[in-house]
Amino acid sequence: MPWLDPDRALALVVEHTPTGVVREVALEDACGLVLAEDVVSDRDYPPFTRAMMDGFAVRVADAGRRASVCGIVAAGQDPQAAGLAVENGRAVEITTGAPCPPGTEAVVMHEEVDGDGESVRLPQGIRAGQHMAPRGSDCAAGTAVLRAGQELTALGIGILASFGRKKVRVLAPPSLAIITTGNEIIPEDGCAGPVTMRDANGPMLAAQARALGLDAATACARDSVEAIGQALARASQADIVLLSGGVSAGRYDLVPAALLGLHAEVIFHKVAQKPGKPLLFARMGRRLLFGLPGNPLSSHFCFHRYVAASLRKWMGLPAPPVGGTARLATALAGVPERTLFEPARVEPDERLEDGANGWTAVPAHTRSSADVFSAATANAYLRLPPGERGMPAGAEVSFAWIGGAR
Amino acid sequence: MPWLDPDRALALVVEHTPTGVVREVALEDACGLVLAEDVVSDRDYPPFTRAMMDGFAVRVADAGRRASVCGIVAAGQDPQAAGLAVENGRAVEITTGAPCPPGTEAVVMHEEVDGDGESVRLPQGIRAGQHMAPRGSDCAAGTAVLRAGQELTALGIGILASFGRKKVRVLAPPSLAIITTGNEIIPEDGCAGPVTMRDANGPMLAAQARALGLDAATACARDSVEAIGQALARASQADIVLLSGGVSAGRYDLVPAALLGLHAEVIFHKVAQKPGKPLLFARMGRRLLFGLPGNPLSSHFCFHRYVAASLRKWMGLPAPPVGGTARLATALAGVPERTLFEPARVEPDERLEDGANGWTAVPAHTRSSADVFSAATANAYLRLPPGERGMPAGAEVSFAWIGGAR
Repeated sequence: MPWLDPDRALALVVEHTPTGVVREVALEDACGLVLAEDVVSDRDYPPFTRAMMDGFAVRVADAGRRASVCGIVAAGQDPQAAGLAVENGRAVEITTGAPCPPGTEAVVMHEEVDGDGESVRLPQGIRAGQHMAPRGSDCAAGTAVLRAGQELTALGIGILASFGRKKVRVLAPPSLAIITTGNEIIPEDGCAGPVTMRDANGPMLAAQARALGLDAATACARDSVEAIGQALARASQADIVLLSGGVSAGRYDLVPAALLGLHAEVIFHKVAQKPGKPLLFARMGRRLLFGLPGNPLSSHFCFHRYVAASLRKWMGLPAPPVGGTARLATALAGVPERTLFEPARVEPDERLEDGANGWTAVPAHTRSSADVFSAATANAYLRLPPGERGMPAGAEVSFAWIGGAR
Repeated sequence: MPWLDPDRALALVVEHTPTGVVREVALEDACGLVLAEDVVSDRDYPPFTRAMMDGFAVRVADAGRRASVCGIVAAGQDPQAAGLAVENGRAVEITTGAPCPPGTEAVVMHEEVDGDGESVRLPQGIRAGQHMAPRGSDCAAGTAVLRAGQELTALGIGILASFGRKKVRVLAPPSLAIITTGNEIIPEDGCAGPVTMRDANGPMLAAQARALGLDAATACARDSVEAIGQALARASQADIVLLSGGVSAGRYDLVPAALLGLHAEVIFHKVAQKPGKPLLFARMGRRLLFGLPGNPLSSHFCFHRYVAASLRKWMGLPAPPVGGTARLATALAGVPERTLFEPARVEPDERLEDGANGWTAVPAHTRSSADVFSAATANAYLRLPPGERGMPAGAEVSFAWIGGAR
């Protein structure tokens, strides 16, 4: 297969990713997920005509006149049950959020009246309905407030709680499995020998998944078609499987062979990008399989750009907004035949005043796809088109935030 | 106390928020937290001189000549243990990631040689060290790779895992308690009567905290100094307490009285902003107390702007970057005497090509601070300075992303 354009590869990932099934989840687990139902108001909001200020519930006819204060109604109290009503010459003291007594035409603030507790002199100008929120004025009973397909925000959680909901139907996130392959990789608790290394990709990819709210099962597999097949069989419950390592062209890169043996449909293999050229994307029935390159930086980048897009599509979330463009703090060398994605630290440009969309990018200048050390504090990936031999300091370069952040 | 400027209020919150204590946490819980230790490389990376390509380990002197292939070394194999070495006229086949055998001066790719498995003809140009990563070239043993004060990224988690770390010392997040006050509020499982409402603020604020990775204990309290005091006593283990409701000037707004009774130091009360004017911020020993207005939109905004900043400071995280400026899709009316923060949906401006820093803002046009319904899908707060009577459609307005997202 020829090397694929990175944008075409991303489009293929999104195109071949299905949307998740509908599941009912507890309200406290629903924030950030996508609604799979319309949410309808259970009653009027406010459920009663509500005082918006502390003061007195009065009649407009009493403007400029003295009214006797025949009681007080506070939030949570029922004026009718207490036999309280507003009439000409009779006002009721009221607190913010309290139900207006029958007969209320307006609420005047404490600051606008004078008088003792017995009676008060009301101001000249009283507008009917002032400082009152009529029943249902924020939201009438039966109104569809939230729609299927919308991402549930914290405000949405509050709305569902006020409607008495404990659970809500959402698009379920995919279950995720991570399999690190390679004879040089020793499992987490093994000790590293002269020619072996501990697994860095499993914990790293799990952390990237967690940043999107997903827990992943992790495992290791040796470099054999059988071992990889067995690891895939153990992960048969996962909707999306990430295999790390073994996807290059070498005679020990057995992930493609293992997938073919399992009759997986390889959608693409090898993308014209650095890092992550050997990236493989395949489908097995409804399951998706990503073959990520074993070099940690390549794995990290391929999750950032491709796996995250697949997870978002599965959860019904839109693609994360592009990061934007930043000014290069140091020159950056290109890779003629491939698109370069360089880790970088992107910070607000101090030469622009607060609020301006100005960013400065400090490239990590990684030495290799194994050099995660230079990239440890990166918060974005810069993008240099192929054919671009390099860019000088000060040049504008486009970037995407790491972690789907805006 | 006079109304405080919103920026001065934010500065006071950050200034009075301490940085959290150091705690050792498991690696899988550490991503996004701030390191409280320098992390030093346990060994050289790569730990051996490593082949960067699949091919043959050779001598430079054999350029253009035929060399016999005396074996193969793959990733995870020890060539010395296998008695493999490279000499003039003798090459060793090698796979990406494998240790170079003793005597290796360069690696040539499969594509560059011809010959059967027995011997290969090598190309003319062979550069010493080509396609080899010398031991320690990515990171030498003893190098401080991560520094105290840095936010732990997924790459950082991978680095710690490769160093054999299971735990890491970080700045511990604060413990959080949320207390919703008000006689009109019925607890979650109660049923709403004609003049009562279910608690929306507790679940909403808990969801906002969760978006920052924090779990919060929630409770309700009646409108009495005693009940509020008892709820605060039950939350005595919390580092930061959010009280919702009861912070206005009314005779049933008893949070200020309750805090004074507990000898809390009120740092400010009332901010010149809409929503959230009654916001109160206090300190009790090392504990911080936020008195959030009871209207859900006010509570949501005050968490977004003030509580989140306090939580980030506690965790050692920098202030979230400013969102930027967006083009107003519809006109927005100002509030002369206060800074207006209006919920809005901010999306990339379709009139600008991909990658450009262009945003369009659709204001929610909320009717009141109780109107969370119009704001349910907002992802940002727009900011209009005081004195600003309004802005027409198309005007540039500054915004901040909701949820600390960039």
